[in-house]
Amino acid sequence: MKYDHQLSRVLIVGGTHGNEFTGVYLIKKFEQFPQLINRSSFETLTLLANPQAFTAVRRYINKDLNRCFLRHNLEDLTLSSYEDLRAREINYLFGKNGKTPVDFIVDLHSTTANMGITIIVDNDEPFNLQLAAYLNYINPAIKVCNLGNSGRSHDSLRSLGRFGICIEVGSVPQGVLNAEFFLKTEAIIYTILDYLELYNQEKVPSFSNNLICYEYLEKIDYPRNEQGEIQAMIHPHLQFQDYEVLHPGDPMFLTFDGQIISYQGNSTVYPVFINEAAYYEKGTAMCFTEKHQITI
Amino acid sequence: MKYDHQLSRVLIVGGTHGNEFTGVYLIKKFEQFPQLINRSSFETLTLLANPQAFTAVRRYINKDLNRCFLRHNLEDLTLSSYEDLRAREINYLFGKNGKTPVDFIVDLHSTTANMGITIIVDNDEPFNLQLAAYLNYINPAIKVCNLGNSGRSHDSLRSLGRFGICIEVGSVPQGVLNAEFFLKTEAIIYTILDYLELYNQEKVPSFSNNLICYEYLEKIDYPRNEQGEIQAMIHPHLQFQDYEVLHPGDPMFLTFDGQIISYQGNSTVYPVFINEAAYYEKGTAMCFTEKHQITI
Repeated sequence: MKYDHQLSRVLIVGGTHGNEFTGVYLIKKFEQFPQLINRSSFETLTLLANPQAFTAVRRYINKDLNRCFLRHNLEDLTLSSYEDLRAREINYLFGKNGKTPVDFIVDLHSTTANMGITIIVDNDEPFNLQLAAYLNYINPAIKVCNLGNSGRSHDSLRSLGRFGICIEVGSVPQGVLNAEFFLKTEAIIYTILDYLELYNQEKVPSFSNNLICYEYLEKIDYPRNEQGEIQAMIHPHLQFQDYEVLHPGDPMFLTFDGQIISYQGNSTVYPVFINEAAYYEKGTAMCFTEKHQITI
Repeated sequence: MKYDHQLSRVLIVGGTHGNEFTGVYLIKKFEQFPQLINRSSFETLTLLANPQAFTAVRRYINKDLNRCFLRHNLEDLTLSSYEDLRAREINYLFGKNGKTPVDFIVDLHSTTANMGITIIVDNDEPFNLQLAAYLNYINPAIKVCNLGNSGRSHDSLRSLGRFGICIEVGSVPQGVLNAEFFLKTEAIIYTILDYLELYNQEKVPSFSNNLICYEYLEKIDYPRNEQGEIQAMIHPHLQFQDYEVLHPGDPMFLTFDGQIISYQGNSTVYPVFINEAAYYEKGTAMCFTEKHQITI
């Protein structure tokens, strides 16, 4: 373990999407009981990122806040949707040149896909990967997914921090608070804060430097007609099978008139975000990943 | 079986709530393949009830369409929200004094609660209960729930028909199409249409006249603070336990600081609609029912 980066400020974010309640209610809890997230070697801040969307129980009001943080968007003062304004405000508070710039961001999300507890990293940044590997070492049920190839490292809220990860839990419906995932997410946050404390003290215990990482390949859309309407559903054999292997020839979709559409690729892949509600409008039925054993 | 009512027109409704996709896509399928729902002794019509809400992937635009059918609301021309206008239009088309009045309505819904396949009736109307008993006889996994005591017989879309039932399936997140529930709902619709055909021909086969029916008692809200914010979650032991018995003293809620709130009533009840996303705003964490064996 290299100790290159003393961390002085950590930001925990919930409600970047207003209808993902796990994060929202954890932020409310931490704001009521701040001692739970206080650690001696750094300051911990909290943010309910999209309060209007939470009040409306929607992912966003005008546009997806978690796609609003491209540098040129933040600098474009002609952008004036609620989420554009909110992104600039958040950047002004916590960004690199902001009022209280943060070294590390934990962004809390939920998905309707059956992704269990997933740590999402957006790049190969060793600091983030080491933390992810540590969390997987503490709890092997935790999956680690690298979305670096999807461009998320540039436009997401967590890209504002020097370092950052996302905790993605599911399957949880939008607008639903699931106690089991609330408790599991809470436990991981405490483990992260304790890890960052140990890191600052240069006392991180040694752990395996091998990690299974699911690396983003591409997104797959639903079959659609010329009007853009979906013409098929996730096949029942694939529904809820996130992180399971998909072989060439395996069923992917079932059309409304009962035809099976199977996977036509040449290599095995590992789909994630299968049937995520918010991704219908993004043209994403699932994301393909490759499973890699990496050494940190 | 008494054959009092020749049925001449049946209406299948989906998308009364725009983010409940099972019904929406079944209606689209039936509109593309109308021969699937044609029967010789009656006319079958379809309705996508709230198309604007479907486009917006929301339950409704201004107000819950499935609460807009009280007679005095339909007659109140000062009500001018999108759903009020839509309710009047639907009443004008399919209501008792409408253009093509319907004898029977099947309204298709989904829920984030773990209610499996539920047939909801809104009263003790023998025709509806006989159909529900028949469906339960054909497939014993189907539950029958009587919401009569909740007032749904007066304000719901299906109250427009002489007779009608709701097919409620879950757990399905809002904005998600789940193939398994799509196929199961589709199969039940065909069974219903076949039953109605047999009924018109006075050829319904004999079947058990006993039925387990879950009868609505009351709705239970989340613990809330003075600002109306929820202060607890459905307890993990109760989550997904729809139709399972709840004894006095059993855990119901878990507060954010870890306190268990248990059921304080004197009698055993059977909760349904546990953690339905759309009911947070209605002040409903679950509905209590009583389990009755009834004879049709």
